[in-house]
Formats: sequence, structure tokens, C-alpha cells
Amino acid sequence: VARGGVPALKRVTRMRPSAASGEFSLIESIRGTALTRRDVALGIGDDGAVLRVPRGRELVVVMDTMVEGVHFPRGTAAADIGWKALAVNLSDLAAMGAEPAWATLALTLPQPDATWVRAFARGFAALAKRHGVALVGGDTTRGRLTVTVQAHGFVPLRRALRRDGAHAGDAIFVSGTLGDAAAGLADRKHTALRARLDRPSPRVALGVALRGVASAAIDVSDGLAADLGHVLDASGVGAALDVDALPTSAALRASVPGAARRRALQLGGGDDYELCFTVPTRRVARVAAIAREQRLRLTRIGTIERARGLRDSAGRPLERSGYAHFRRA
Amino acid sequence: VARGGVPALKRVTRMRPSAASGEFSLIESIRGTALTRRDVALGIGDDGAVLRVPRGRELVVVMDTMVEGVHFPRGTAAADIGWKALAVNLSDLAAMGAEPAWATLALTLPQPDATWVRAFARGFAALAKRHGVALVGGDTTRGRLTVTVQAHGFVPLRRALRRDGAHAGDAIFVSGTLGDAAAGLADRKHTALRARLDRPSPRVALGVALRGVASAAIDVSDGLAADLGHVLDASGVGAALDVDALPTSAALRASVPGAARRRALQLGGGDDYELCFTVPTRRVARVAAIAREQRLRLTRIGTIERARGLRDSAGRPLERSGYAHFRRA
Repeated sequence: VARGGVPALKRVTRMRPSAASGEFSLIESIRGTALTRRDVALGIGDDGAVLRVPRGRELVVVMDTMVEGVHFPRGTAAADIGWKALAVNLSDLAAMGAEPAWATLALTLPQPDATWVRAFARGFAALAKRHGVALVGGDTTRGRLTVTVQAHGFVPLRRALRRDGAHAGDAIFVSGTLGDAAAGLADRKHTALRARLDRPSPRVALGVALRGVASAAIDVSDGLAADLGHVLDASGVGAALDVDALPTSAALRASVPGAARRRALQLGGGDDYELCFTVPTRRVARVAAIAREQRLRLTRIGTIERARGLRDSAGRPLERSGYAHFRRA
Repeated sequence: VARGGVPALKRVTRMRPSAASGEFSLIESIRGTALTRRDVALGIGDDGAVLRVPRGRELVVVMDTMVEGVHFPRGTAAADIGWKALAVNLSDLAAMGAEPAWATLALTLPQPDATWVRAFARGFAALAKRHGVALVGGDTTRGRLTVTVQAHGFVPLRRALRRDGAHAGDAIFVSGTLGDAAAGLADRKHTALRARLDRPSPRVALGVALRGVASAAIDVSDGLAADLGHVLDASGVGAALDVDALPTSAALRASVPGAARRRALQLGGGDDYELCFTVPTRRVARVAAIAREQRLRLTRIGTIERARGLRDSAGRPLERSGYAHFRRA
């Protein structure tokens, strides 16, 4: 069909094998690495995916966009971008106490690059496999490197972890260690710290274990102070934070010798993808049991208080930094 | 907290009211216009949304990204972009025979602009209201204007319309008229044609009515020839198209006098967001009944044949143009 000189819009090649037959296909690269699941009645290759939510379960939906140079440094390896794009979403599911099931992917690329896409797919698939996540659809477009992932998971009815359940007296915990990713951004040659930035481990099993234990939960993406602040706002409470108790890796301690600078990274650096959660005192013993079972460091870092605001143990106010995109950019 | 000179990544402001308190908020603008639904247990404002799929229903998930200058012309009104970003997704749901329920939105903007966002939200909400869609979450980031919407809908078990069910002998139908949007792109001052480009009407009610009637369905987004081609590939069949029967609006006829040029727009222009579907001959009478009930033009435009390929009634091959993003860009 002649196009008659009409300046038509360029259309996308969607995640449909038929659209890509006989030519380089972004999607086949990704599709080939994708898991299958029995609750996927129809996956990639039609106008939409058809999915089955198990009876008695609620569906949890999360979505995160990563833009090159904004959410990850230029030059980040494609496989790491693939991993992280899924990881930040699984971290949100973890914060809801959800078991991951499915993901969709919207990938915007400056130009087709089969090698890049294969590496991206490899990183994405490695994490998807670890958590049993099936890629069920998506869209590819041309433009500045941008990755939007949406992830779906399940929780039993009314058992999702939320931000608004913290009460005065609850203990505040955080998983793993804080500040490593931010230090890895400052010192990109430090392998261990850089791995925390590029390949975060979403705390999926922890989130599931915290159902019925935590009164509120959030994942630490914008920085502990900012994210805990969201819990405080949603719950209408305040908190005293024991800033000397913030869990610190040996790598961070060696790489950033100054305690004040370390603390700044731990409170405001972000990109940790740990869970911060609150627990009523009568259930605090269960947190220790979960830590043992999961061989995961879970550190008590403070207490929820009635008085609004965030302060240290001596009552000095702590700034709730963190990044608000259109404020600080 | 001092940031200690660490070159931290800029973080997003997510769709969380707490992150935006006391400052200009993209999200409040959008959230304020959003519908609520009883199957939304938890909407915008946490790490994820918690949703309830009705018993006996499968979940249909679709996702489409629109990039300025690629999927809509620069200078398109913000309200039209908001409308269209949802419309293209509801059109995919329609092609699956799904009833729309929820949407999430990932919005990337070059800079914050409250007026623009309010208008965008108005357009999005107008279409959402028409179809009872609740916005349940999303993400905002900074960059080139890009909109990714994911929409969720329901179908009864095993009743989704698919691409792979067409059989030799089935009649091929298309809804509405074709070529108007492509003509509206060529002549942007033509109000009626331009409206077809900017404010497509997804054929949601038609898709639902076609469950149990159509053997296969797709929405016409890349152009009739390309999209019908996807059905043919998925079904392993071919088709003869009666190109003289393609439904043509009076506006298109007046605006594009040449029949050959009109036909090129109708076969390859795309952005129609009509449904193309196939129907076994024994059920063709039901199509006429649906057309009457819905006061919608449904035109028989050809027949599925065993021999692969797409041709006109005289057997001349038709090019399956349409836009494949990384091939023609």
C-alpha cells in the first residue's frame, strides 16, 4: 500500500511475535527468557494478557519508572538495568506483603540494539526466575532510555501491609544495612557497594513473613527518613529514631570513615530497597524469629510516638530529606 | 540531614499524597479527578494498590506507551493526550472483550506544569468516567513527555477474545469508519478528522458484545492491513479483503477526494481504534443485531481463507504496511 505522502505517526512494535517476524525483535529476546506460570491463561502475543487471581486473594499492583541519568547512572550495564527495573517493583510488592506473580514491561530505547536488549533481558529474567515472576506483556517504543515495570502479586484478603497502621509504642525495624547503595553511587568503583546500587535484593520473603506481624511497612527507596516519614504521615504519628543503631555494613564503614557522612547516606541516600516496618511490642519477639529463619539482619532502630515529627533519641529533629523529583531536580 | 556532597540520584515523587504535601503536586491533580470503585480495597497513596477481581472472572492486563512526536504530534492539547493515553488501552481491552476496571499511569514530563497536568487529568478522567475506570496508582518522573498507561479489565473464564481463533470461511468485520485519524494527522485543521486522531472512542461495549460471537478480534491501531495481518498470522490463515467495502466517513470522502489515497489511509494509516473481528457464518446475523443495539456501523469487509496472505477480492496481494517502530523510524 502506498502511503500517499501522509505524514503518519510512527507506530510502536508491540510485544507481539507476529509484528516482529522476520526482523530483529526486541521482544523475542525478552520473551525467550520469560518464565511461564499456570495462572497465565494467555501471555505475550495478543492485545492483552489473561490472568487468574487465586480465590481468596487480593491483587496488589505496583508500578515504577526508571529514567537513565535520573534513576540510574548513565553507563549502567544493561543487565543491571533489567534487574533493577524489576527489583524496585518487587520491593514495592514486598512492602505490601505480596507474593509476586506477573510483570509487564514498557521499554523505551534510543535505538534498537540486540546486544543491549539481550543483556537487559538476562538481568530481568535472572531476578524474575528467583521470584517466580512471569513477564506477561508490554510495549517497546523509541526515545530516551526509560523503563516502566508494573508488577502484580497476591495477598490473602485484607492482609496487605500498609503505611497507615503504625501506633504509638510500636517498635521500628529496618532490614539489612542502609547507605550502601548511596555510597556505591559516590564510589562507583567499589564493587560491593556498587552491587547494592545496581542489583538490589527485594525483601520479598520478609514482606510475606511480616503479614500479621508488622503494623505498617514501606520499602526504603527515597531514603529512610523520607520513607519512614510517609508511614508517620499516613498513620498520624511521630517517631524517635536511634540513629546510632542504623545497621551499617563493613563495606560502608571502610569506604566512608566519617560517622556523620555515613549517617547522611543512611538517612537520606535512598536506593536501599530494604523494608522499614513497625511492630507492636507484643509481637517484637516474632521479628527475631523471622530474622533467624531468613538469616536476615533485622534491626530495631526506634519507636513510634504520639507526637508528630521525626527526631533522634535525644529529641533533636531529623530532616526528612529524600528526593522529590520536581522539587530538587 | 546534610547530603555530604554525595551525587545521589534524583528520586521520583510517586503517587503518594504524603510525598507531595505542601508543594505543587502532579498527583493530587490527577487523583482529585479519579473515580472510586468498590473493588479497590486500597488505591493511590501506598506502595501499591490492593484490588479485588470478581469471582469467576479472569483479569485482562494491557499496557501502551505514548511518546510525544512519535505517537502523537507535538502540540497536541494536554487534555487530548490524557484522553488518548487511556483510550488506546481501553481499545486493547475492547479487543479482548474485557470490561474495564482499573488503570495505572506512569507520566514522564520535561518540567512540572500545573496547568498542563490539570488539563491532562481532565482528559484522562473524562474517558475514565465514561467507562467506570478507577485510577489506582502510578509514578511521575522527569524526562521527555512520555505516558505509559496500564489498564485492567475482566472477562468471564475462558471467554476472552483472542487473535488466534479465525477459521477459513469466517466473515471479517470492522467497526465504525477507517482512515479518519490518519487524515486528521495530514490535515490538522479539520476538526472532525482531528477529533478522530485526538479523541478516539474505544469500542468497549462492542468488545463485550462480541464475546461468544467473534472467533478472533484485534483493535486497529497500526492500520487495518497490519492488524488484520496479526490475526491471520496467529490463526494460521489468510484473507480476501473487499477494499471497496471499507467503511468511509463523509468527512474523509470530502477531505480526501482521491479513492486510492483514501484507501491507503484506510489500510495503512492506523490510529483508528476500531475493532476488526472475524465471525463464523452461522453467527453473522448476530453482528447485525449488535450493530442495531449499539447504533454502531459494523461493516463486512472480507472473508478468511485457508491460503495464507492478504489480498483483495480480485486476488491481488495487499501490502501489510503499518508501522513497526524500529524498522521504519
